[in-house]
Parts: sequence; C-alpha cells; structure tokens
Amino acid sequence: MTAPPVQATAQFRQALGAFATGVTIVTTQTADGRDVGLTANSFNSVSLDPPMVLWSLARNSLSLPHFLSAEFFAVHVLASNQEPLSNVFAAKGADKFAGLGIQRGQGQVPLLDGCAARFQCRTAYRYEGGDHVIFVGEVVEFDRSDRPPLVFHGGNYAISARKPSAQPREGRRHGETDNSFNRDFLIYLLGRAHHQQFLKLQSELERHGLAETDWYVLTLLGSEDRQTVAALDAQLAYTGTEVTYDQMAGLALADFVQLHGPHDPEASVTLTPKGRQALIELVAAAKAAEADAERSLGQDETRLLKIWLRRIIDATAPGPMHRRRADD
Amino acid sequence: MTAPPVQATAQFRQALGAFATGVTIVTTQTADGRDVGLTANSFNSVSLDPPMVLWSLARNSLSLPHFLSAEFFAVHVLASNQEPLSNVFAAKGADKFAGLGIQRGQGQVPLLDGCAARFQCRTAYRYEGGDHVIFVGEVVEFDRSDRPPLVFHGGNYAISARKPSAQPREGRRHGETDNSFNRDFLIYLLGRAHHQQFLKLQSELERHGLAETDWYVLTLLGSEDRQTVAALDAQLAYTGTEVTYDQMAGLALADFVQLHGPHDPEASVTLTPKGRQALIELVAAAKAAEADAERSLGQDETRLLKIWLRRIIDATAPGPMHRRRADD
Repeated sequence: MTAPPVQATAQFRQALGAFATGVTIVTTQTADGRDVGLTANSFNSVSLDPPMVLWSLARNSLSLPHFLSAEFFAVHVLASNQEPLSNVFAAKGADKFAGLGIQRGQGQVPLLDGCAARFQCRTAYRYEGGDHVIFVGEVVEFDRSDRPPLVFHGGNYAISARKPSAQPREGRRHGETDNSFNRDFLIYLLGRAHHQQFLKLQSELERHGLAETDWYVLTLLGSEDRQTVAALDAQLAYTGTEVTYDQMAGLALADFVQLHGPHDPEASVTLTPKGRQALIELVAAAKAAEADAERSLGQDETRLLKIWLRRIIDATAPGPMHRRRADD
Repeated sequence: MTAPPVQATAQFRQALGAFATGVTIVTTQTADGRDVGLTANSFNSVSLDPPMVLWSLARNSLSLPHFLSAEFFAVHVLASNQEPLSNVFAAKGADKFAGLGIQRGQGQVPLLDGCAARFQCRTAYRYEGGDHVIFVGEVVEFDRSDRPPLVFHGGNYAISARKPSAQPREGRRHGETDNSFNRDFLIYLLGRAHHQQFLKLQSELERHGLAETDWYVLTLLGSEDRQTVAALDAQLAYTGTEVTYDQMAGLALADFVQLHGPHDPEASVTLTPKGRQALIELVAAAKAAEADAERSLGQDETRLLKIWLRRIIDATAPGPMHRRRADD
C-alpha cells in the first residue's frame, strides 16, 4: 500500500481535531522495572459490564513493546491544570517521572497525582488498527475527583464549561414581558459586576480623598507619565466623564499630580511621589477585588472571561477609540 | 459472570464522565433500505495511514444487527448548536430522520448537515469489547467545518473554549511594573465593556432627556411597578448613586412617573404611559447593544459569560445586597 499524500493526512488530522477529547497519560512498568508513560487522547470507554476502556498507540512508538508485554497499565485523565504534565509526557525521552510523587498500582504501575480520574487496567485485548494498536483494558480499580478536565480540540488545549441549559433564562421573573429590562441583560450584568468590583476600591479612594475620575487619571499616568489634559480626556471618553484643566488643578493642589505648561487642556500632567504612592495602594485594592472574583470563577475561566470582554470591547468600540486601541 | 453491583457501575460511569468527549451521530442504511442512526460519544481516532476511526455500540442496541451487516457507516461530529439533534438520536424509536435534509454518502448512508466534521467509513474490523462491539472504520471520505464542537462531560453538554496560553498577559505594556494598573485588570475590562455598551443607550437617553440614574429607576419600575423611593434607592446602592424624592419629583414633572403619598422617601412611584413607552424604546436599544456583543462572541459564549458574571456578582455582593438578591 502506498502512503497517502502528506496533504491528505494533514487534512485528516485536522478533521479528527474537530472531535474534542480529554487528555490522558497512560503508564506502565517495563519487564525490567522501568516506568514508562505517554500522553494520549485516543482514550475512550468501551464496556460497563465488565468495565472496559480502550486507547491506541502508534506502531512506531518506542513504548509499544512495553505496552504489548504489560499485564497492567493505568490511564490518567488529566485535570485542566495538568497541561505542563501533558507536555512532559508528550515529549520524547528523558525521565518523564523525575520529580513526580508517584504511587504504585496493580503490577507496580506508576500512578500520578492530581488527575480528574484514574483507571487501573489489566490488558484484555490488543487489536489491529492500521498504524496503531488498540489496547482494551479491563478496569480493575479506578478513582475520580471533581477537578475540571483538560480538553484537546483543534490541535489546542481547551477548557470545557458546562453548557447553559436551553431553559428559560435565569433572572427573568415570572410574567415579565419581553419589553421589560431584566437582570439577564448583559449591560446590567456587566454594570453590576463592575460596580461591585469598584465598591471594593471605594473606601481606598475615600481615604485618599479621590473621586472615581481621579482614579482613572492616576492609572493612565501610571501606565504613561506626562500626558496632556486633552489626551487624558480623550482616553476617558468611553466612561462618559470629562477630564478638565480645573479638575487636574484640584488634583495638583492635593499634591497627587504636577501640572506643566499652559493653563489649558494642553497642560502636561505628571505623577508626584504622593500620587504614585496612592496609585500603588489603589492597585493593591483592585488586585484584591480581582482575586475575589477569580476565586469564584477559577483561573482558566477568569482568563477566558477577560479574553471575551476584550472581544466585546473591540467589537463595540466607537471609531476614535478603535483607532486609539491600535496604539496599545 | 455475575453482574457488578449497580452502585459500582454508577461510579464507573461517573469516572468515565471525567473524560470529556465530543458527541457524534453514527448513521447507516439497513439491508432493506431504512436509515438508522444513534448518538455516541465513544468515537475516537485510530490510525492516520490508513485513515481509521473507531466507535463502540452496546450489544443490546436494537441497531446492532444493522451495523454488524453494514459495509459503510458515517460518523458525524456534532457542532455546539446541534444539541437538539444529539437528543433526537439518543432517544429510542420514531423516525429520527424526519424533517432532516439528508444527503447520501457511500453505500447510500444518510449524511446530516451542519456538523463540525463527517467521516464516511467502510467497516474494517468489528472487535469484542465486553458488553459493546468496537467498530473500526477505514475513512473513505471526510469533510469538516470550523463550527465549534458540542462537548460532553460529566453527564452534561458542554462547550469548549481554547485555553488561554500561559504567555505574558495581553494588555501589559513592555516595561510596565507590577505595581501599575493596566488594561488586563478585570475591573478595567468590566468597566470598559459596560461603558461601551452603555454608550449605545446614551443617545436614546438624551433624546428622552433622561439621566443614567433615571434609566435605572425606569428599569426597576418596569420589573415591578409601584415601589417606594426608599426601595428604589436601596436597589441602586451597588451603583454608588442615590435616588432621592427630589429626583423622582423631577421625573414626575417630565411625566415619566407619578408620585403617590408623602413627600419623602416613602412616596410610591409608578410608571406613566410616557415612562413605559420610553422604557420600551430604551430596552430595544439595550437589546441592540447586546446583539452586537453576542455577534462578536457567539451565543454559547455569551450565555456562559453571563453565568460567570452572575457568579462574580454573587461572590462580591456586599451583605445587604446579598440578602436582597435572595428575594429576586
């Protein structure tokens, strides 16, 4: 049989990538007592009674002889935070187990910690599968945790999030008509989430005698010191608040900033040491507020949330702001 | 062999659920020309050269004889929006293909539309797998789309989202220290996304001569008419803005609301026909703004975004608001 064109194989791989899978590490111990293991996403369930699972391994894998002769193997379903471990076991060579705390399972098979689930198997069948061998294992022991899974899709790691049900939307009250604003609106949720995050900064702001706009100005100067009043005003246009020379003069009087040049919007503003110190304390408060949110969502979800918010921001940016964002 | 205890099987199922998978529908045509198909998540890739995939089917499935005698079958990897189709093919009986536009593939196998990927297969092997039969198919034709996949995990449908890379965070400028506020902060992103959504309402508000707080008040009355000024004020505490009797008197003067009872925070506020009409127009503008955001994210992502925002709102709610939320 002749090999298929490389391009066809690449396209086939890509089509296979459309099927999302978890990620597993399969381990065993060799006849001479060495631990071997590799990353595989070809795992799946087979039978409930008897309990059986399968996975497949490339015929040209260096580990193949060890798995062909192994009575036992273990499949570890990886958790969302085990991406680094997945990468270690996907690479060739070296001692993949170095530094890992391992336990011993049936047949001295090495067991890894922190997974979403583990299946210890006795090899039941080995089947022909083209350039791979299909291993079917009878599960002799298993455990699971509630850790969210690592997902692989389209050639990339992914996270999975439970799909919102197609039920009537949360937050809509019984009898509410479609013409009424309700707590399911994105604008309400964004506003409320933002306001509540902001409330945590409020006491810090009051302690310094600063208003909300002052905080925005300080953060802009923290990113780039010495900006004109006009430039600060333009950057805050999206908030609907104005930055004027008089306001900046007030901040200067309280020694948070210093003004340079003309007494108009072309005046330059720089942070004073007192302003910089206030900014550091405010940033710490903002970080604490963010940490609360992150705890309630999880790290991956928070990062994804931010990516999505950026996408909304880009998609809804009015023209001039869009131009400015290109300079970020 | 005796059956395992029911409890052990349930736990095994649960452990298997820790492995996320895509969802497929496998179809074939029977010897007498009927279309059969069923939902399966036991699909996986096997071999690249020759291209092969596998899936398994319960021995007690009514469709088993048809697949055992079929020369061809097709595996459809479902897209995120095909959850209803998945449910149809997961149920027993009826004509699952009724009303579906189908094409014909190799061996007259019915092909469904709108999937993330499709694999037309010639049955290569049938293997013993406990209470299931493993079907290995050689892929004779395939296609794919960029549709996001439907995912199954922990007994529920899920969506997968590409995992943010562990790279330095977006939005942090080169040389920015960790003490500076930057565009990666959640509070900034929430605020900006909210403000930009709100800008779309702004012209509508100005047209009616309404301020931001007025809009909040109208939406609250839209959900529940006749509330006291004090109650409105309490519900808007999270925004940091106050609702006073004098403000409401202003709204009443412009004929958006009517005031009843004492001239103090215990006065009741109701919507006038003009107020209700303004609310309807404002809600339409809010919906349009939301539609823009949804287009940039996708429907599932938007719904998930809302769920996450609610979780942040609940987690960061100060005490009194938390109590109030219980009455929602």
